[in-house]
Amino acid sequence: MNEKRNLTMLMDYYELTMSNGYFVKGLKDITVVFDMFYRSNPDGAGFAICAGLEQLVEYIQNMRFTDEDIAYLRGRKMFDEGFLDYLKNFHFTGTIEAIPEGTIVYPGTPLVTVTAPLIEAQLIETMMLLTINHQTLIATKANRICRAAEPAVIMEFGARRAQGADAAIEGARAAYIGGVGATATVIADQMFGVTAVGTMAHSWVQFFPTEFEAFKAYAEVYPDSCTLLIDTYDILESGLVNAIRTAKEVLEPMGKRLKGVRIDSGDLAYFSKKLRKRLDEAGLEDCQIVVSNSVDEYLINSLKIQDAKIDSYGVGERLITSKSDPVFGGVYKLVAVKRPDGGFEPKIKISENPEKVTNPGKKTLWRIYDKETGFGYADLLTLSDEEIDGETPFPFVDPLKPWKRLEFSGVMVERLQKTIFKDGELVYQLPSLEEIRTHVKKQLKYTVWEEEQRFENPHVHYVDLSRKLYDLKEEMLNKRVH
Amino acid sequence: MNEKRNLTMLMDYYELTMSNGYFVKGLKDITVVFDMFYRSNPDGAGFAICAGLEQLVEYIQNMRFTDEDIAYLRGRKMFDEGFLDYLKNFHFTGTIEAIPEGTIVYPGTPLVTVTAPLIEAQLIETMMLLTINHQTLIATKANRICRAAEPAVIMEFGARRAQGADAAIEGARAAYIGGVGATATVIADQMFGVTAVGTMAHSWVQFFPTEFEAFKAYAEVYPDSCTLLIDTYDILESGLVNAIRTAKEVLEPMGKRLKGVRIDSGDLAYFSKKLRKRLDEAGLEDCQIVVSNSVDEYLINSLKIQDAKIDSYGVGERLITSKSDPVFGGVYKLVAVKRPDGGFEPKIKISENPEKVTNPGKKTLWRIYDKETGFGYADLLTLSDEEIDGETPFPFVDPLKPWKRLEFSGVMVERLQKTIFKDGELVYQLPSLEEIRTHVKKQLKYTVWEEEQRFENPHVHYVDLSRKLYDLKEEMLNKRVH
Repeated sequence: MNEKRNLTMLMDYYELTMSNGYFVKGLKDITVVFDMFYRSNPDGAGFAICAGLEQLVEYIQNMRFTDEDIAYLRGRKMFDEGFLDYLKNFHFTGTIEAIPEGTIVYPGTPLVTVTAPLIEAQLIETMMLLTINHQTLIATKANRICRAAEPAVIMEFGARRAQGADAAIEGARAAYIGGVGATATVIADQMFGVTAVGTMAHSWVQFFPTEFEAFKAYAEVYPDSCTLLIDTYDILESGLVNAIRTAKEVLEPMGKRLKGVRIDSGDLAYFSKKLRKRLDEAGLEDCQIVVSNSVDEYLINSLKIQDAKIDSYGVGERLITSKSDPVFGGVYKLVAVKRPDGGFEPKIKISENPEKVTNPGKKTLWRIYDKETGFGYADLLTLSDEEIDGETPFPFVDPLKPWKRLEFSGVMVERLQKTIFKDGELVYQLPSLEEIRTHVKKQLKYTVWEEEQRFENPHVHYVDLSRKLYDLKEEMLNKRVH
Repeated sequence: MNEKRNLTMLMDYYELTMSNGYFVKGLKDITVVFDMFYRSNPDGAGFAICAGLEQLVEYIQNMRFTDEDIAYLRGRKMFDEGFLDYLKNFHFTGTIEAIPEGTIVYPGTPLVTVTAPLIEAQLIETMMLLTINHQTLIATKANRICRAAEPAVIMEFGARRAQGADAAIEGARAAYIGGVGATATVIADQMFGVTAVGTMAHSWVQFFPTEFEAFKAYAEVYPDSCTLLIDTYDILESGLVNAIRTAKEVLEPMGKRLKGVRIDSGDLAYFSKKLRKRLDEAGLEDCQIVVSNSVDEYLINSLKIQDAKIDSYGVGERLITSKSDPVFGGVYKLVAVKRPDGGFEPKIKISENPEKVTNPGKKTLWRIYDKETGFGYADLLTLSDEEIDGETPFPFVDPLKPWKRLEFSGVMVERLQKTIFKDGELVYQLPSLEEIRTHVKKQLKYTVWEEEQRFENPHVHYVDLSRKLYDLKEEMLNKRVH
């Protein structure tokens, strides 16, 4: 079982050089606001599914610099002794607002907003990004694969190809949020309750003198959950024949049924249809066909078009690494600095790349729903002193068509961010993994348009700005107020 | 700092169902041989750089099933009590031979060979694959990026986009093996001695009332290592101007020089050339130009063709996830089972996919070097009872051209695998990270053909079979001896 780790020092070195600089310059107690957001959905999708907040909470609660850490930093001869003393007593005292795990999210919206003393806000950056980026990536990818496969079930089989132990463990958690039915990774069952499943490898079949003896031995030990791997030598001529024989000669005399056959190679469309036909002819209509081997949503869609006969998929490397698009590009940007008068001075980053320009100021993120259908019509960013009630007409700007005069009224509105930490105290009741997973399913059924869920050219969800926020941004861009 | 974790339960569930089956069937003490190998190089490369052995050794040494683990397994109601008792006292007693970390390796050659009692050999599978696959992937990718950039230096900046904490930590280790000069990840410096570096984020620049004030403050705190991030607002009109002013007005009066400027956006070729020219005109010829933003070996090659003026690269997501090819597909296959007479019965897996057919039997892996040049001519797999001395003519088969009569003589030969564990005891002196890294560099300089190192259509290294091994494989394929 996995002990709690102190990952405090898993941070970019510049977090420490900047923090030391702020400390030396006497700036450490100034409150700032950072937004964590991302710029595009992986795989050209219409949305992402945010995940990883629970591990971020654990990280922040466990943050502490040990004597060993301080000694290491002192050895680098770049850090002020006062700063090292400050680190010794470091704990997070700020406020964090975040979108709950399992929420459907869109580019440009703040998934996490941190309001905290400067150094504190800075030092949590790396792990926040790492955790949310990773789990959001995998939850999103898993969900795509699960939606493609429905009603077939997806089992997450990726540990051996994961990018490190956490990628396997937390990847299984994220995959479960995304909708997989089970995992192969035992520790993920222990830690998170994602049911671990598995039967046999090729080595089992090879070990015995003959394939039938291997199947027979397995059926005798596991008569109630006997899925046989039938592609070690020859699927149709050997594996299938021996599987049927096992069903008839070993299982049926015990009053048991062959639960499934699995193939991990070959033309999955061709073989699944052949297998279904022959299993049915042998009276094994209830024997499930399980396939693996480089499966992802693209292959599943192709198999469906070919009318492949597949009951469940074991999905490995292409899920656990999000192989077709293995990076979720969340960033963490300063958006405001508290003035001595208590107000917040908005901050902007401009950049040579237009998509890297940030939305300035302390903001609120709203989701706007169609009142009749309940579907999510748009996300709306306002400044934090603005309120929208859904009834009173509220002027807003579509940043892609800023010339249009638009307003919301007669809609339902929801504040998407919840308060997680308030002045350093955890005030949020973390939902269970089952609740998070159910939240995903409900949104996809009741609030997210089908047009946003399709795999090709999905509808691009509107992320609108309040007129006031839009004008502020324009003013800062034009005047170079920075 | 990272405490030692017990990752014993990070295994695929089928390792446990198979092991329980073997236990129940009274087969647990039969000695078997497994090979870990891979089938193709990521990114269409000519070779890979193996890494991760040290973490595999740690895993095996730390393996133990806790009472909590046993209770969890008992709760699954699939496992024999005798098996659970066996797990309580589990420790690895087998022999492991492996190719040392940092060795240039090729598809189809066993990186690790395990000779152990059946269940022991099975239970270490998942973590072996996970660890070796992950670090080999990243070491190989990092090396490609470093070779493309030479003589410019690569800094590994990927933690925030890594697939979990271990991907950041062990990814930095693997990247160092591959040749990066430094990392941003502090904990990797603490744990492995990969120098952590970093300066400032955009937030530092945004925080101050003006860009110049931000640069000035940084230069005052870090006059000896002042690299300024100059793309927060406008690279040429603002960032560069303020950087030069900082060099002249803040650093030079202290007798210090501006160490570097960094850009993280924009057209890197265009801006690097502009920057070099203007910095030189300002008398800052020694000011280095550092770039980041979606860098990998492909972009670097393109920048070189454009004569970009870049001294070092910060490389993030595309290295730490090996974005263009994020999976290293190592597998672990049964190749032999010990007979009661002490000999080894070879085992083969056939599969519908020809590339998935295995090389049967307990084998030895040799590297054959040209005697005159010292370059690696081929790898050779023999059965373990065969010896080659380089002088006596040794008949072999190129499996792609089996009709040719070939033999080695007048060559140098090296056994590539070293004994790591002997009957459960660690007998291998793990090399330091510096030694591993140096090993990589030496091979690429002295023993690996340039033709194998090129990025497009590299020479495919020969992996030949002894005549005896080839004949055995043919016989097993033809007779379906299994």
